[in-house]
Amino acid sequence: MGVIVKLYEYIQDLVAERPEVFLAFALVLCVQLRILGTRTPTYESQSFKNSTLAADIQEAGAAVDDEVADADHSEEPEEHVPYQPIRYTEQEMVERSRAHYTLMNNRRSVRDFSTEDVPREVIDNIIRVGGTGPSGAHTEPWTYVVVRSAEKKREIREIIEAEEKVNYARRMGEKWVDDLSHIGTTWSKPYLEECPYIIIVFKSAHSKNPDGSKKIHYYHEISSSIGVGFLLGAVQNAGLCSVTTTPMNAGPKLRAVCGRPESEKVLVLLPVGYPRSDATVPDLHRKPLNDIMVVV
Amino acid sequence: MGVIVKLYEYIQDLVAERPEVFLAFALVLCVQLRILGTRTPTYESQSFKNSTLAADIQEAGAAVDDEVADADHSEEPEEHVPYQPIRYTEQEMVERSRAHYTLMNNRRSVRDFSTEDVPREVIDNIIRVGGTGPSGAHTEPWTYVVVRSAEKKREIREIIEAEEKVNYARRMGEKWVDDLSHIGTTWSKPYLEECPYIIIVFKSAHSKNPDGSKKIHYYHEISSSIGVGFLLGAVQNAGLCSVTTTPMNAGPKLRAVCGRPESEKVLVLLPVGYPRSDATVPDLHRKPLNDIMVVV
Repeated sequence: MGVIVKLYEYIQDLVAERPEVFLAFALVLCVQLRILGTRTPTYESQSFKNSTLAADIQEAGAAVDDEVADADHSEEPEEHVPYQPIRYTEQEMVERSRAHYTLMNNRRSVRDFSTEDVPREVIDNIIRVGGTGPSGAHTEPWTYVVVRSAEKKREIREIIEAEEKVNYARRMGEKWVDDLSHIGTTWSKPYLEECPYIIIVFKSAHSKNPDGSKKIHYYHEISSSIGVGFLLGAVQNAGLCSVTTTPMNAGPKLRAVCGRPESEKVLVLLPVGYPRSDATVPDLHRKPLNDIMVVV
Repeated sequence: MGVIVKLYEYIQDLVAERPEVFLAFALVLCVQLRILGTRTPTYESQSFKNSTLAADIQEAGAAVDDEVADADHSEEPEEHVPYQPIRYTEQEMVERSRAHYTLMNNRRSVRDFSTEDVPREVIDNIIRVGGTGPSGAHTEPWTYVVVRSAEKKREIREIIEAEEKVNYARRMGEKWVDDLSHIGTTWSKPYLEECPYIIIVFKSAHSKNPDGSKKIHYYHEISSSIGVGFLLGAVQNAGLCSVTTTPMNAGPKLRAVCGRPESEKVLVLLPVGYPRSDATVPDLHRKPLNDIMVVV
């Protein structure tokens, strides 16, 4: 049972961090099943009907569902306390909801950052807001690394640009084989050094219980991503900007720069600061309400 | 190449929706690799060095990284427009960030809902805010189903309670085999009928380009989850409450109730409304800033 949970976690991380390795495994699996299907037609039923194996899988599946059926569910019942938040009038609610939509609809992903500094308390409060998000069984599976040091920002830029160069060269091979000279700047990310802060959000699949036993963070990716939504809302509320990036292959190197343990994986990297006075954004538009909402 | 991408998507969905089936496959894979490792030691190098296969895997990996390295990246360069959002003074920023943290820190997951109705425009604006989230290559991979009909809410409650009963019975078997009688109400979710609205968030792994070709939504789960963070912020801002639930095994049935296509998967289910006047919440606390933030 423990082995299965560990295997499952490992594969989840593999899908997230090294999809190409995972693809290789998946292909081998497909090839194998086919080969075995031809050579020994009873293989599949033999495997799946092995009683111990099947029972273990069933149990692992049940345990996962059980834990996550309710995101805040926990084994030990907690004391309950009354909850009476602020109650607005209907008119206030409508006005607040309009103002909040206007605020959030003005958010854009920005890559042109000013080098101006930002009050540190604002950054702290933005991180605090990220920490108020819901999480499966209240496991709070996130770590926010705030990169302030110019040296660290330079290292991060180098790591990400090196990966981007590889990506870019490969794409070029496909699309513009004859002319590599026009696109020398696209892998360049000067904003990673220009912005006053970079926030790297790490998610962890497990931690330790007070008794030293392993605490599994089911749904750590969904929980941590919802937390990123909270954090980006706080960035926007403060009049700052960011761009949500997923520097996939750079994860282990970024983790090393940040000095985080192997149990933590990079989820997103967010430069944070003021937009430069000449900042521009792509002229993209959002889907209208009727394209994203269905009422039943 | 297309086959590989499809396979990758299929496995991603399998991991998300049917982890037990995926576990079975993964175990077979492990067993197979071991068997083959013993019987034909050259198998692994043969497979991985097959030039066409290896090239396909490489290419698929590169394509994924390329697309998602920058969340808003798109193949066709868009027109750019100036971006100059509101600029607050430092004092205003600090005050806004404190007020926003106070607002968000008051949020709790609530299961005790009032049956009072909520102005429909508030719900619409909450959904609009969900639609302002960032997404990989601006694919907006979300659909928000707003469940208003009492009949649909009853069906949803039945589906989820049926799953919870199974989960609960299994857990009971493990933990309190001798006494099943004390816990007759825990799988019960009356709030699913009492709340005025249920919002079910669907994520989709792909859609169609205008030319009919398939558009892959890389990182659709992270993007959609960030959108859930935006939406929950809007719920809190309006003075309403919710609880973030992940009704995993109930996905296909919930999709049927909502009339959504198979390409859309349930991400979370959010009852939305006012807390009941006697609402309580577990006496949980959040990690302090120093436990979630690291400055480098």
